Amino acid sequence: AIATWLNSLGVKVKEVKIIPDEEQIIINTVNQYRSLYDYVFTTGGIGPTHDDITTECIAAAFGKRVIRHPEAEARLIAHYEGTDIEFNEARQKMADIPEDAALIDTPLSAAPGFILENVHVFAGVPSILLAMFEGLRDSRPGGVAMTRLTVQCGIGEGSIATIMESVQTAHAGVSIGSYPWFKPGQFGTAAVVSGLDPDVAAAAADALAAGVRGLGVSAEVMPLGS
Amino acid sequence: AIATWLNSLGVKVKEVKIIPDEEQIIINTVNQYRSLYDYVFTTGGIGPTHDDITTECIAAAFGKRVIRHPEAEARLIAHYEGTDIEFNEARQKMADIPEDAALIDTPLSAAPGFILENVHVFAGVPSILLAMFEGLRDSRPGGVAMTRLTVQCGIGEGSIATIMESVQTAHAGVSIGSYPWFKPGQFGTAAVVSGLDPDVAAAAADALAAGVRGLGVSAEVMPLGS
Repeated sequence: AIATWLNSLGVKVKEVKIIPDEEQIIINTVNQYRSLYDYVFTTGGIGPTHDDITTECIAAAFGKRVIRHPEAEARLIAHYEGTDIEFNEARQKMADIPEDAALIDTPLSAAPGFILENVHVFAGVPSILLAMFEGLRDSRPGGVAMTRLTVQCGIGEGSIATIMESVQTAHAGVSIGSYPWFKPGQFGTAAVVSGLDPDVAAAAADALAAGVRGLGVSAEVMPLGS
Repeated sequence: AIATWLNSLGVKVKEVKIIPDEEQIIINTVNQYRSLYDYVFTTGGIGPTHDDITTECIAAAFGKRVIRHPEAEARLIAHYEGTDIEFNEARQKMADIPEDAALIDTPLSAAPGFILENVHVFAGVPSILLAMFEGLRDSRPGGVAMTRLTVQCGIGEGSIATIMESVQTAHAGVSIGSYPWFKPGQFGTAAVVSGLDPDVAAAAADALAAGVRGLGVSAEVMPLGS
């Protein structure tokens, strides 16, 4: 979900890492990535239970204190008001945010996400995670959206390896990923052509399709995901 | 798929990392992980196209040469025999394996996987990846299978945070993960109790269920995945 969202904003995903809920591993990973990359996104570990240690680890990574955030607390009190769910000590922990962090607004969650410098801390529950993207509408990461085209080819990738490589070499800034697929009685290759310049990407996709058709098999250019 | 397979063999997954097809990043990641962990598993990048650079990067990480492997070549020739697919130069590249590596047998793939010390190199196509597990039947990684039990609770995780923490503390070697869920008109928490000792894990799950029932709500212990 995060990769799809970032791609639509023109932000390229460089690495994804899944780590255990262990304090030192979280701290080291956040510190390594926030210096390596423009943006870091974390999911999960900001709920009310004993295994929710992300907030305190992010704070430790930045050398910050965790504070009971007045606005987060007010939102949580309002969230639980009128329900029969008690705003107990465990749930109050969700109002604890690293000092200097900005809250991420969301229409539906109890536990707020937050932003500290270039680190965005999201919920792990998928529906809440998706709602947090909405909350970043005015402060979301930006870039130039990549043009991504699929060249759907009715032939195995090994038969068009040379064509793909020469088309990629001939079109500066374009990269071609090759995704073979198999169905009963059928097989083919989806070649995904990506580039920042829409004209160059389109020219590369057309050149690839023409080259594949030159082998006497089908090739069709379409937007990625269609 | 790999995590499920490893869990069934009693091997604990510590990290998952998704990286781009960039030579230096692959080499550095493989070298870091093969010294940190007992086993490393890679997927993808061993096919016939220009973006398939995993084999040469693994070899470089170990300071090994890549050789045209006679048995891999023989298998590929047999695989394409009787088809109208040409065993061309691009496909011949799939017979290139780091020296000293052992091939992974599989009933269905053209491109063989291989094992070099503690690094297992798998295909990226899911159906071929799954078939490669079969090929490891006699040389697969081993450990003590974890006992994993789900305690399905009819209450939000914030209401049982204290119970989960005290049950975990009281049962050595047991860890409890908390997974809240929501459906229209319903919500609850799946608490997953894991431990190497089946008796201690079962006792912890029973203690947790009893504690939750003490709040007047439902709690049911069942094997993970049922």
